[in-house]
Amino acid sequence: MRSKLFVPCSRPEFFAKALAGDADALSFDLEDAVPEAGKPAARARLAEVLRSDAVKQSGKHLIVRVNGLDTQHFAADIACLNGGRVDLVNLPKVSSAAIARKGADAIEGAWPDPANRPGLLVNIETPAAVRQAGDIATAHPAVAGLQIGLNDLFETLGIDRRDPRHVHAALWQTRLGAGEAGRFAYDGAWPDLGDAEGFRAEAELARSLGYLGKSCIHPRQVSIANAVFDRGAELAQAHRLVTAAHGAAAIGHGAFVFEGRMVDAPAVARARDLLRLYGERA
Amino acid sequence: MRSKLFVPCSRPEFFAKALAGDADALSFDLEDAVPEAGKPAARARLAEVLRSDAVKQSGKHLIVRVNGLDTQHFAADIACLNGGRVDLVNLPKVSSAAIARKGADAIEGAWPDPANRPGLLVNIETPAAVRQAGDIATAHPAVAGLQIGLNDLFETLGIDRRDPRHVHAALWQTRLGAGEAGRFAYDGAWPDLGDAEGFRAEAELARSLGYLGKSCIHPRQVSIANAVFDRGAELAQAHRLVTAAHGAAAIGHGAFVFEGRMVDAPAVARARDLLRLYGERA
Amino acid sequence: MRSKLFVPCSRPEFFAKALAGDADALSFDLEDAVPEAGKPAARARLAEVLRSDAVKQSGKHLIVRVNGLDTQHFAADIACLNGGRVDLVNLPKVSSAAIARKGADAIEGAWPDPANRPGLLVNIETPAAVRQAGDIATAHPAVAGLQIGLNDLFETLGIDRRDPRHVHAALWQTRLGAGEAGRFAYDGAWPDLGDAEGFRAEAELARSLGYLGKSCIHPRQVSIANAVFDRGAELAQAHRLVTAAHGAAAIGHGAFVFEGRMVDAPAVARARDLLRLYGERA
Repeated sequence: MRSKLFVPCSRPEFFAKALAGDADALSFDLEDAVPEAGKPAARARLAEVLRSDAVKQSGKHLIVRVNGLDTQHFAADIACLNGGRVDLVNLPKVSSAAIARKGADAIEGAWPDPANRPGLLVNIETPAAVRQAGDIATAHPAVAGLQIGLNDLFETLGIDRRDPRHVHAALWQTRLGAGEAGRFAYDGAWPDLGDAEGFRAEAELARSLGYLGKSCIHPRQVSIANAVFDRGAELAQAHRLVTAAHGAAAIGHGAFVFEGRMVDAPAVARARDLLRLYGERA
Repeated sequence: MRSKLFVPCSRPEFFAKALAGDADALSFDLEDAVPEAGKPAARARLAEVLRSDAVKQSGKHLIVRVNGLDTQHFAADIACLNGGRVDLVNLPKVSSAAIARKGADAIEGAWPDPANRPGLLVNIETPAAVRQAGDIATAHPAVAGLQIGLNDLFETLGIDRRDPRHVHAALWQTRLGAGEAGRFAYDGAWPDLGDAEGFRAEAELARSLGYLGKSCIHPRQVSIANAVFDRGAELAQAHRLVTAAHGAAAIGHGAFVFEGRMVDAPAVARARDLLRLYGERA
Repeated sequence: MRSKLFVPCSRPEFFAKALAGDADALSFDLEDAVPEAGKPAARARLAEVLRSDAVKQSGKHLIVRVNGLDTQHFAADIACLNGGRVDLVNLPKVSSAAIARKGADAIEGAWPDPANRPGLLVNIETPAAVRQAGDIATAHPAVAGLQIGLNDLFETLGIDRRDPRHVHAALWQTRLGAGEAGRFAYDGAWPDLGDAEGFRAEAELARSLGYLGKSCIHPRQVSIANAVFDRGAELAQAHRLVTAAHGAAAIGHGAFVFEGRMVDAPAVARARDLLRLYGERA
């Protein structure tokens, strides 16, 4: 899930192109991209798409951003997903573990069968959520990951979205929060469509913090995300490290020098995790 | 309140100049600037000033930094303010929500009439306060804002005050803490009187984090703070954004491209908040 | 304790050289450096060394990193230390205040006499520990300090160990956590043996955050740590500041300009603390 393309449900003319594109995941939006009056029509369109053969047979991860739990739209948003294919429900404005639990309970209620129940992708986009990201990530087993929402967070507080120091601080806290529960962290959107370098720099920052991928609001951002979050080199190195660890263990050393740096058990465990996560033999 | 000038109550010769100057706020200090033996005289001087016509008719925000709740001076400091004009009581060394509540209760006791009761400006200047800034900001409705106190925080821990990475980390946590409760955050003092560029750089960092203004310990810092925290350009942009949002809503779009970046509901809400806060029509 | 040299208990050939070297402290490791099968032999070797005259008469601080509380090795690790000289027990993977308390209780049980009981040096190396560093530091009086473990923390989460922004964020939170309880913070290891400049840069960052010293995994890192964490200049300045404070107090000023910057009570208190801590007259 290196890239995740934003698809406003108010713009059905984008659907086919998004499905045919290179994004690893699509994120259909029922929230901010859809004005109040357009919500019912957007839901109807989305329900149809999620039930279509094109979507059901797609190799893409399918995500739906619903309206917040405190809105009148949430229940209808969830209801419209039933019978369609959805991998993750993306819940905005989750400011506390209690709200995350409420969201997870609603999903369990709507999908009684765990086999086809979507996971919960929680948006961290308020100051309280940033501070309590660890509590939110551990709130419920259905929480699959945390997604940082910098635009909402920064706009509300008057924080400069273009200052990478501020971006770093928010990404750091959210990554560590996700890590408390072994959940993944996912990077949010870069608002300036014309600034590919800004997008790439933010993606590289997220990658270096262990984020899984980055949200894209335009198809031309997708190839950058796919390149930045590619894990080929990392997996090759993990293979070499596991091999070296076998050699060191054979002569009784738990810590050893690998490609110029001292490594020990946690590094080997991380390498094995990576190979397992990405389906290669460890 | 772009600038707030520090006025030691031990130095009455500074009072008239401070009142005549360009600072948006004056902060009369009864705490660290006044040695133990000088506290009663300082209080008497301050009480007289706060009751003077010059102060009562001044357009400035008036702030008094009192001694900490755990000192023998606190009660007398609060008592001396009665009958004078005070907009904010600045309480130092607030390390927990419990202490903030105690301070707020004392103010409510001293000013039974809510109409002329000062707000509470809480100093965040211990490590526990930085971590719990969100709890402190939400502790009591009387908490008007959080003010970061880097000198105390850094001196005590042996942290280098001149390293902007450290300053950023403290300002970030305090800004987010204030934001949890919708309170303002205010920047502390820059100790090097001769280093105008250092002052300006720190003010710009605070501005980019959404701080309201910066504390000044010398009149010549005031004009820099007034320039850095000027909001003219920001308000003009907010006007343009609100206008664009009306246009987008008219054609059914909740998210739209504005001056090169994708914006949606939170950006529009922030623009409306700014225009309301600064008294312009939205 | 400017420098602390890592001594794997699986490598007895390093012991004599470590004792003869320039490190202020030695940290004997029973954990990751010792493979499972080698633990009993490592303990036996360590017990002998800690009872030797060479160690008992050494001027070095002696630290032992034991296996985690949740391992089968912890009890035997603690038992092997009895009768030897140990200043600090270093406990890995402490993720909560409850675990810190459990570790402290085990030490109290093993050394009933407080006079020769070692302190507890707690490793902060999980995301939960970073967030709750303040709770861990205040968990028990036996907690002497917090040591940041970046390798474990970063490897597990896939965070780039070479990005100084990430290092800063972890060091900041851990330093403030230690500061909540007045405990010291200690910097962890730099894994790249060949990169002396990387080691020095990280040591300087830790120093500027008020850390006491830095862990070394090779003797040639020791002299760098000793130089970076030298406090000669700082102590000389503290002397000058205390003298200046006497002069300012004599003319009734609590805040005054010292070597170009405005200082007040906290700066003077910090200077006195430093002189006391390092055994000089204030």
